[in-house]
Amino acid sequence: MPENIPTSKNASRMEAIVSLCKRRGFIFQGSEIYGGLAGTFDYGPYGVLLKRAIENAWWDFFVTRRDDMYGLDASIISSEKIWEASGHLTGFTDPLVEDTKTKKNYRADHIIEDAGHVAVGLTPEQMSALIREKGIKSPDGNELGEAKTFNLLYPVQMGASSGTASTAYLRGELAQGMFTNYKNVMDSVHPKLPFGLAQVGKAFRNEIAPRDYTFRTREFNLMEFEYFFDPRLGNWQELFEMWRTEMYTWMDHVGIKKDMTHEIEKQGPDLAHYSKRTIDIEFDFPFGQKELYGLAYRTDYDLTQHQAHSGISHAYVDDTTGEKFIPHVLEPTFGIDRTILAVLTSAYNEEVVGEGDTRTVLRFQPRIAPVQIAVLPLSKKEELTKPAQEIVAILRKLFRTSYDETQSIGKRYRRQDEIGTPYCVTVDFDTLTDNAVTVRDRDTMEQVRIPVAELATYFTSKIL
Amino acid sequence: MPENIPTSKNASRMEAIVSLCKRRGFIFQGSEIYGGLAGTFDYGPYGVLLKRAIENAWWDFFVTRRDDMYGLDASIISSEKIWEASGHLTGFTDPLVEDTKTKKNYRADHIIEDAGHVAVGLTPEQMSALIREKGIKSPDGNELGEAKTFNLLYPVQMGASSGTASTAYLRGELAQGMFTNYKNVMDSVHPKLPFGLAQVGKAFRNEIAPRDYTFRTREFNLMEFEYFFDPRLGNWQELFEMWRTEMYTWMDHVGIKKDMTHEIEKQGPDLAHYSKRTIDIEFDFPFGQKELYGLAYRTDYDLTQHQAHSGISHAYVDDTTGEKFIPHVLEPTFGIDRTILAVLTSAYNEEVVGEGDTRTVLRFQPRIAPVQIAVLPLSKKEELTKPAQEIVAILRKLFRTSYDETQSIGKRYRRQDEIGTPYCVTVDFDTLTDNAVTVRDRDTMEQVRIPVAELATYFTSKIL
Repeated sequence: MPENIPTSKNASRMEAIVSLCKRRGFIFQGSEIYGGLAGTFDYGPYGVLLKRAIENAWWDFFVTRRDDMYGLDASIISSEKIWEASGHLTGFTDPLVEDTKTKKNYRADHIIEDAGHVAVGLTPEQMSALIREKGIKSPDGNELGEAKTFNLLYPVQMGASSGTASTAYLRGELAQGMFTNYKNVMDSVHPKLPFGLAQVGKAFRNEIAPRDYTFRTREFNLMEFEYFFDPRLGNWQELFEMWRTEMYTWMDHVGIKKDMTHEIEKQGPDLAHYSKRTIDIEFDFPFGQKELYGLAYRTDYDLTQHQAHSGISHAYVDDTTGEKFIPHVLEPTFGIDRTILAVLTSAYNEEVVGEGDTRTVLRFQPRIAPVQIAVLPLSKKEELTKPAQEIVAILRKLFRTSYDETQSIGKRYRRQDEIGTPYCVTVDFDTLTDNAVTVRDRDTMEQVRIPVAELATYFTSKIL
Repeated sequence: MPENIPTSKNASRMEAIVSLCKRRGFIFQGSEIYGGLAGTFDYGPYGVLLKRAIENAWWDFFVTRRDDMYGLDASIISSEKIWEASGHLTGFTDPLVEDTKTKKNYRADHIIEDAGHVAVGLTPEQMSALIREKGIKSPDGNELGEAKTFNLLYPVQMGASSGTASTAYLRGELAQGMFTNYKNVMDSVHPKLPFGLAQVGKAFRNEIAPRDYTFRTREFNLMEFEYFFDPRLGNWQELFEMWRTEMYTWMDHVGIKKDMTHEIEKQGPDLAHYSKRTIDIEFDFPFGQKELYGLAYRTDYDLTQHQAHSGISHAYVDDTTGEKFIPHVLEPTFGIDRTILAVLTSAYNEEVVGEGDTRTVLRFQPRIAPVQIAVLPLSKKEELTKPAQEIVAILRKLFRTSYDETQSIGKRYRRQDEIGTPYCVTVDFDTLTDNAVTVRDRDTMEQVRIPVAELATYFTSKIL
């Protein structure tokens, strides 16, 4: 293994990752050619391959391979009544404070915490008092106004302005799509408890101050499921533990370093009033230890709310006793953008290779690498490019395979290292006689000679 | 093959499909428990499997297996400047007309066409005149008001209301995400012409009158790519023909019946001013022949617009001559919801099976079937359920496989027919001695005995 360069300072490490993501086509600022739109990001060619690989791996891991999980893909635009029932219309808020001079908006709690004080559990009035008492200023050094409550849901007008128009909302989370379809799923697929409803998709929050790259954005991607179970069995701790374990297995599955995670037990004002237990899994992002995933026991709060507001029974009927009850629910939540950021942070390395030479390498878990195999003919001559393209055609059926014939082989290796390709296959003039190729390992940089006929089997054991 | 029941009337055929989709968990009305939200739909457990299968098949077909295609996943919320440059802020409109009594809104062109007149190319003023002249009434028989222009883009407010808030828009199509990232992709991945930028995702249009089930909705799913090429080569007809052919191959790939498609050459006012040629592929939906896909030659219109509005050069530099030019673009567009609807329409059959018995069957192409194999133990006894679950564990690694032990085998076959499962594997008491199972074919209903050890190979040849 090449020698690792001691971790650079966190700020510059973050800069290095952001720069690599732009330079190599992983992530761009949203609406960038028009100066950018705060809190939005676009995934570029390698970013979208990484994102799709993570989403599909998650779906396989939590849905396809299980008997107790069902998928769902609910509409982003949803009825005002859903968000009234869920409590988001009144409660989905952040405390807002304005710089009285620049008129820029900030999260009052973040301003207070950045100044070294505690904001958890304070009302906007209490925050205003604390800001005055401690003389806390805006990041530009100006006076701050009064803290007030700001709702994060995005309203949209459905239909034309006169007549039948009405206000609906972009979903602020995926969960309500599962709760409001619980009844539809019960009536159509008839699952038995315990079972889960899983969804992958976008959610929207009008963040007062988007920050930390793709960590806190206004449009973001989530993977989530609600796991419904029979509360009469009294085994919620056991199920909670099962999902807690599965979440760690998942992180290992996609290459999130366990020693960079921390488990936080939510307590006091941090624990939602309806939750019996919630843990956050935090991760050592370059900008600090912040929430990556969550696991919440939400009791029967949501189904009970929707039953009351819709007037439609959400009771589950016991097969044998005929007893009726509202299922309870466990909710593991996985931010996709945060997963990508944790995967990038876990994978990013700057290393010394050879005398005075360095390389940047993304040590992605091969399962989720945007490109899994790069096939590189040693020269652009047709006698090498033709067999190289034949190898691409074979490998592409099983793996994300790319072909590159530009520049020197050394430069091509560095480029593949930077986008995290675990294996490079080099086709050289010996290939024409021995019908074998050189396979170079990204991490060890070691090279082995493998017969072309054995390549698919070789990579199946390495990647799948 | 079982005998087909003569196609029922189209209206009742549509009703039958909608009913099956709800009953079997494919598609539900959005926000249904709150009375529904017009123009939004939720995909249920089998619907989301079908949708994911189609999306992944499309990505494999048009992106993964090609060397000239790159992916992208741009933000839904996007800068006002993008939609100003693209012309959507002024031109993305439909003619709106109001029932003066009920205040309900209608598409003026649809009202006119439904009354048997031609609306294409008319201004709102001309439509108003025609409505008066012909005495056209609303569907409720009331007087109609003046036709006026209504913009379909959804505006959203970014940030808090005072201070730095600004108006952005939910994207009305995917294409602008590709055009505005053209420069980013060129600077990071350095592709050579011709190449494509592909994207799968949601778009939003504030439709005046959503209708025809999931055909015309306010939130919808698209798959699309922009194929950039060198206009100096003068081979656009050839490239157009290549994509036209690929689109038909794709339709066959997912089981859209070719004899239900019709090609329409856009002409006159139907052809966008910047397009040199556009064809629509229409499909015989139960509610009529309507647009399924489109293929447009958009020239250099979009890149030129964004170059002018952003002030950033979008020129491509010729490697050898150093000559600079704006690439031209071909755009094949595939609506996902319409693909699903065409696939459902192609697959839906009601058949006579045996004496006086009928079945409903979805003859999905096995590649995209939500469930590809159902494993059914003949009894709930553990001596059968255990080997059945072992078979599930093996097949699940390669195919979407489900397990079902409830009710009689006949009822289970019917249920699998209704969700379009191409193969049922029945584990019976003979399995315990001959280590073989019965495989039942959905379409022919024929059964063959296959050794358990050969199942994976058998299905690989049938499904993949």
